[in-house]
Amino acid sequence: MGKYCFGVDVGGTTIKMGLFSSSGDLLENWEIPTDKSEQGKNITRDIAAAIEQKLKDRGISRADVLGVGLGVPGPVDKNGVVYQAVNLGWGNFNLQNEMQELTGFLVKAGNDANVAALGEQWKGGGKGCDDMVFVTLGTGVGGGIIINGKMLVGSGGAGGEIGHIHLEDNETEACGCGNFGCLEQYASATGITRLANRKLSASDKDSVLRHETVSAKSVFDAVKAGDELAMEVAEEFGEYLGKGLAIIADVSNPKVFVIGGGVSKAGDVLISYVQKYYKKYVFHANRGALFSLAVLENDAGIYGAAKLILEG
Amino acid sequence: MGKYCFGVDVGGTTIKMGLFSSSGDLLENWEIPTDKSEQGKNITRDIAAAIEQKLKDRGISRADVLGVGLGVPGPVDKNGVVYQAVNLGWGNFNLQNEMQELTGFLVKAGNDANVAALGEQWKGGGKGCDDMVFVTLGTGVGGGIIINGKMLVGSGGAGGEIGHIHLEDNETEACGCGNFGCLEQYASATGITRLANRKLSASDKDSVLRHETVSAKSVFDAVKAGDELAMEVAEEFGEYLGKGLAIIADVSNPKVFVIGGGVSKAGDVLISYVQKYYKKYVFHANRGALFSLAVLENDAGIYGAAKLILEG
Repeated sequence: MGKYCFGVDVGGTTIKMGLFSSSGDLLENWEIPTDKSEQGKNITRDIAAAIEQKLKDRGISRADVLGVGLGVPGPVDKNGVVYQAVNLGWGNFNLQNEMQELTGFLVKAGNDANVAALGEQWKGGGKGCDDMVFVTLGTGVGGGIIINGKMLVGSGGAGGEIGHIHLEDNETEACGCGNFGCLEQYASATGITRLANRKLSASDKDSVLRHETVSAKSVFDAVKAGDELAMEVAEEFGEYLGKGLAIIADVSNPKVFVIGGGVSKAGDVLISYVQKYYKKYVFHANRGALFSLAVLENDAGIYGAAKLILEG
Repeated sequence: MGKYCFGVDVGGTTIKMGLFSSSGDLLENWEIPTDKSEQGKNITRDIAAAIEQKLKDRGISRADVLGVGLGVPGPVDKNGVVYQAVNLGWGNFNLQNEMQELTGFLVKAGNDANVAALGEQWKGGGKGCDDMVFVTLGTGVGGGIIINGKMLVGSGGAGGEIGHIHLEDNETEACGCGNFGCLEQYASATGITRLANRKLSASDKDSVLRHETVSAKSVFDAVKAGDELAMEVAEEFGEYLGKGLAIIADVSNPKVFVIGGGVSKAGDVLISYVQKYYKKYVFHANRGALFSLAVLENDAGIYGAAKLILEG
């Protein structure tokens, strides 16, 4: 009779749920909707009910459940206190304690990007590497840092929040965070679109990008087709992200960078632009860091959440 | 009938030795010279002999020794392998194993800046803070990062090697490491002198710095005396270091920055210049990080080395 645990990834529209064996196999995954009404007060109750239902459906005894891991979109400190998960409507409260009371199980919670990083380190692009930096390039830039196989949570749960490191003194547009020149302004999907639009205005070079909707995807598609202007945009993107990752490496000395998120679907060509500038800016001790693409996609979060329980 | 441990800080000219009680009190400290002849092959033997002698002098039984902690000037990985400690003449070897064989005691080794960081976190400027960044401003810029009370060693022992993070794209002089625009080029004693000399050439403003030897000390002395040009130099220094520490905070989310090294003797005025720019560039989640001055001075290394043993 094996043991089980749950890995839960709470998002703004759906909550991804995973049932895992104690040996780390994903046995089943499913989703429930995120009820954001009334400042998201039903979310924890809905998760607890979904777990209870699953145990009943499968005839799993409560005694065989090791615990429930949770990833949520906001800072979560070492004690499981969530600070302002605005996408869920949550203020500050101890999520770990609340879920523990609701379920009766051991609960561990973390920030969703940190938890996804743990998942990629355990079963994905960072497998076998105890020291890893995970970078997600989506609408924004997120990240998670794994040190010695554990999440870098930091003093207030903001560890690995690398999207807002300062990279450009001459930026005139403000980032969503209020600062100017954050990594996210150049390396996210919206950042790449911005770089491309700037380049299109400043240059009169022809480009396929002039004849279609500009997006991170269209930029990298054009790069693959040999479009010169798109390649200039990719160089700019690569220089910002490569420089940013070089600095992150000089702080944390990872074995591998794992790149995920929608933008990373561009594949190895994206890594080649980043790596070129990474090597230019990084301290020699970190020049050998590996780069790989994330592999777990949307399941990274449930894997990482399960690992929070299984790592003991 | 207490237990004891040794904390050893190996430098290029002297080896600092400390005998500690198991409750963490420094009972005695002394120094032995660093014998760098023959690629430093006698260093480990000399340390072992000094320990043996101290046990004999004090009549301490070998059974009462918990172990020997070591800090050395070079990268040391998680297994105690040193990589190219050039100041000692050392190549690559497992220092932990070698010292363990020589002494018969448990041995733990780390990079000297990381070990000093651990010392400051334990008994110095970072006391009570599990997440801390230690920065030493001396001839160069060194650092150590403490995450959850443990040293961030990294995949190859280069964790916290923050002196060479890239900060300035327009630098024309190379750093000692071969790159251009490293933090160390602006925030070390030599960096501050360089900034001051550049400013003196570029401006025709009068300044006390025109009438004496320019150094980090003379710059901050002049700042305290209200010298305008020196204050401009301090602003530049503060902007570089503040920006660098902001990025480091956005990666690691520390509770406190502890500033040590010769330059930090300038005191609180130095911190005020750094903090001004730190707050400008940092992500809001990290804006509340504390800043304090190191307090253990040259003893930080032996304290941290002892802590390596006492933390278990």
